[in-house]
Amino acid sequence: METTSTKAFGTEAAETPLKGLNIERRVVTENDIEIEILYCGVCHSDLHTARNDWGGTMYPAVPGHEIVGKITKTGSNVTKFKIGDLAGVGCLVDSCKTCESCKNDLEQYCLNGWVGTYNGEDKHLGGQTFGGYSEKIVVKEDFVLKVPANLDLAAVAPLLCAGITTWSPLRHWKVGKGSKVAVVGLGGLGHMAVKLAKGLGAEVTLFSRTPDKIQDAKDLGAHNVVISTDENQMNKVGGKFDLIIDTVPNIHDINPYVTTLNTSGTLVLVGYLGPLDPFLNSAPMIMGRKSVAGSLIGGIAETQEMLDFCGEHNIVSEIEIIKMQDINEAYERMLKSDVKYRFVIDMATLK
Amino acid sequence: METTSTKAFGTEAAETPLKGLNIERRVVTENDIEIEILYCGVCHSDLHTARNDWGGTMYPAVPGHEIVGKITKTGSNVTKFKIGDLAGVGCLVDSCKTCESCKNDLEQYCLNGWVGTYNGEDKHLGGQTFGGYSEKIVVKEDFVLKVPANLDLAAVAPLLCAGITTWSPLRHWKVGKGSKVAVVGLGGLGHMAVKLAKGLGAEVTLFSRTPDKIQDAKDLGAHNVVISTDENQMNKVGGKFDLIIDTVPNIHDINPYVTTLNTSGTLVLVGYLGPLDPFLNSAPMIMGRKSVAGSLIGGIAETQEMLDFCGEHNIVSEIEIIKMQDINEAYERMLKSDVKYRFVIDMATLK
Ligand SMILES: [Zn+2]
Ligand SMILES: [Zn+2]
Ligand SMILES: [Zn+2]
Ligand SMILES: [Zn+2]
Repeated sequence: METTSTKAFGTEAAETPLKGLNIERRVVTENDIEIEILYCGVCHSDLHTARNDWGGTMYPAVPGHEIVGKITKTGSNVTKFKIGDLAGVGCLVDSCKTCESCKNDLEQYCLNGWVGTYNGEDKHLGGQTFGGYSEKIVVKEDFVLKVPANLDLAAVAPLLCAGITTWSPLRHWKVGKGSKVAVVGLGGLGHMAVKLAKGLGAEVTLFSRTPDKIQDAKDLGAHNVVISTDENQMNKVGGKFDLIIDTVPNIHDINPYVTTLNTSGTLVLVGYLGPLDPFLNSAPMIMGRKSVAGSLIGGIAETQEMLDFCGEHNIVSEIEIIKMQDINEAYERMLKSDVKYRFVIDMATLK
Repeated sequence: METTSTKAFGTEAAETPLKGLNIERRVVTENDIEIEILYCGVCHSDLHTARNDWGGTMYPAVPGHEIVGKITKTGSNVTKFKIGDLAGVGCLVDSCKTCESCKNDLEQYCLNGWVGTYNGEDKHLGGQTFGGYSEKIVVKEDFVLKVPANLDLAAVAPLLCAGITTWSPLRHWKVGKGSKVAVVGLGGLGHMAVKLAKGLGAEVTLFSRTPDKIQDAKDLGAHNVVISTDENQMNKVGGKFDLIIDTVPNIHDINPYVTTLNTSGTLVLVGYLGPLDPFLNSAPMIMGRKSVAGSLIGGIAETQEMLDFCGEHNIVSEIEIIKMQDINEAYERMLKSDVKYRFVIDMATLK
């Protein structure tokens, strides 16, 4: 298969910093779109993959799955996009399209395994897929998103992962006008959960461990902030919430949050994968028909719905723009939660 | 308030066996119904309350919340029942009727605290409520159920707790024709879950630790039995079920069952209240939008719906009838799961 050499930024081992390197991209086939990448958001998964924190990283690794840019080539069968259009690519670049999940527009739960934008199995060239820390990307039309023209393009990038990851549970659990939604954690995911829940008409509460986030949360649109370490404040919101979006990426005790769910309420984990330690107690769940659930990014149709909604409601991510060369420093700052709220790489700096 | 002395069976301390004793029942007020109790099912909660296993038992304790009988008196405001009607009483005899849960026919989740049929706070006489191990009971009309005349009355009794406890999650999670439902545990709750799920048109699978329940499960209507200790069999049902009703009353590992849920599937705990040990792993929940939930008995309207459904579909519990005097021995056998599937006391033996 014909390929073109492409400038990228990545790493050849878990222990080494990211640096400039060259990768091969396939030349567009009939169903493909080539996108010149203008901005790429920086997700925690990028860092974990680069450093092989979850195991399974294939090197060289080129992270990045919050991609926005301009279409530079289209295959002969492409109908929904044309050269010059703005376009986005999120966490998925392929799925089986035939399983029950795919047939229900839930490609993120593809039963035959979806292909990640990076560190996935490249079905065209073999080896691993390479993400958005690169000049350009070639993606099947079915996995390309339309980007509303009225939004700040750099600030749209994080919608492709942080945005859809919080949007999907808000929609699945039917949040709307008057819903009472709480958000745990105010990072890249959490700040989008606040904005999107508010956009949907919910009353939004942020749970924070310390008072220093009160003003930030209110600036983002949260109606209330509850200090989760203050027993008195926690008791006051006992049985209050229809839905809690828990974005905390580290191990933490979710039991105190479960007690703040209303009858039939659900706490959805979107940030932390692993054992629920300390033990989750089933008693308050049974006594109030409460659920604890997980949710993973979102499907392509749902991602488009979210982007359209953001266009209509003027919602974007809060970002700090960085140069490609500053990515290693940005990772260190992310680990200290020293970013409001998402780094976005200006890909012009890669040239 | 005027009362009448009533023969009952109960215990005055956690350590002593149940024996005959006398309790006071209020004389019917205008909204009350008096029921001569003909049969009373024996629930695990009866035993745990008698022995103060959960703490909080008020003595003397008279258990029993699977009550069927004949109406002997009605208050002047009673409109839906008349003397001589068959009637049932389940786990609830009162709730606030004004909170959000009560307004939504979810009295079992009353935010102001519902009144249990036994060991609840008696709002009329003070002290604790006394359950169905007695000649008669006086209950507000709103908490009395109509019993279909075509069913075996003794075998109806367990529907009032075991039946509704499994019916409510089947309905809340919208089980119907073609749903794939699994049941964990084949005791009083589990055997009703199998019958009711099948009645609703689901394909029903029983999870059993040992092969000795295969024939029993099939006799009850299960389409499949999966031996949960057989890794090969468990792998074959990976990602299969829309809903799992977990009736096991003891601490156990639910992680292997979570992996058998389909995308967006839910495992509902109805038997075990306490810490989920070993740790519940959130990773498979996130990767498939799976939920773990709890559910408690059911509301009054839903209990009536279930009884009507059982009347139409000829569904009753599988029972072993015992004398009131054999209750202590029955408790011992229950602890060994030596009952197919529910003891029911013939209350004529109390006279
Ligand atoms: Zn991401
Ligand atoms: Zn698929
Ligand atoms: Zn019971
Ligand atoms: Zn209430």
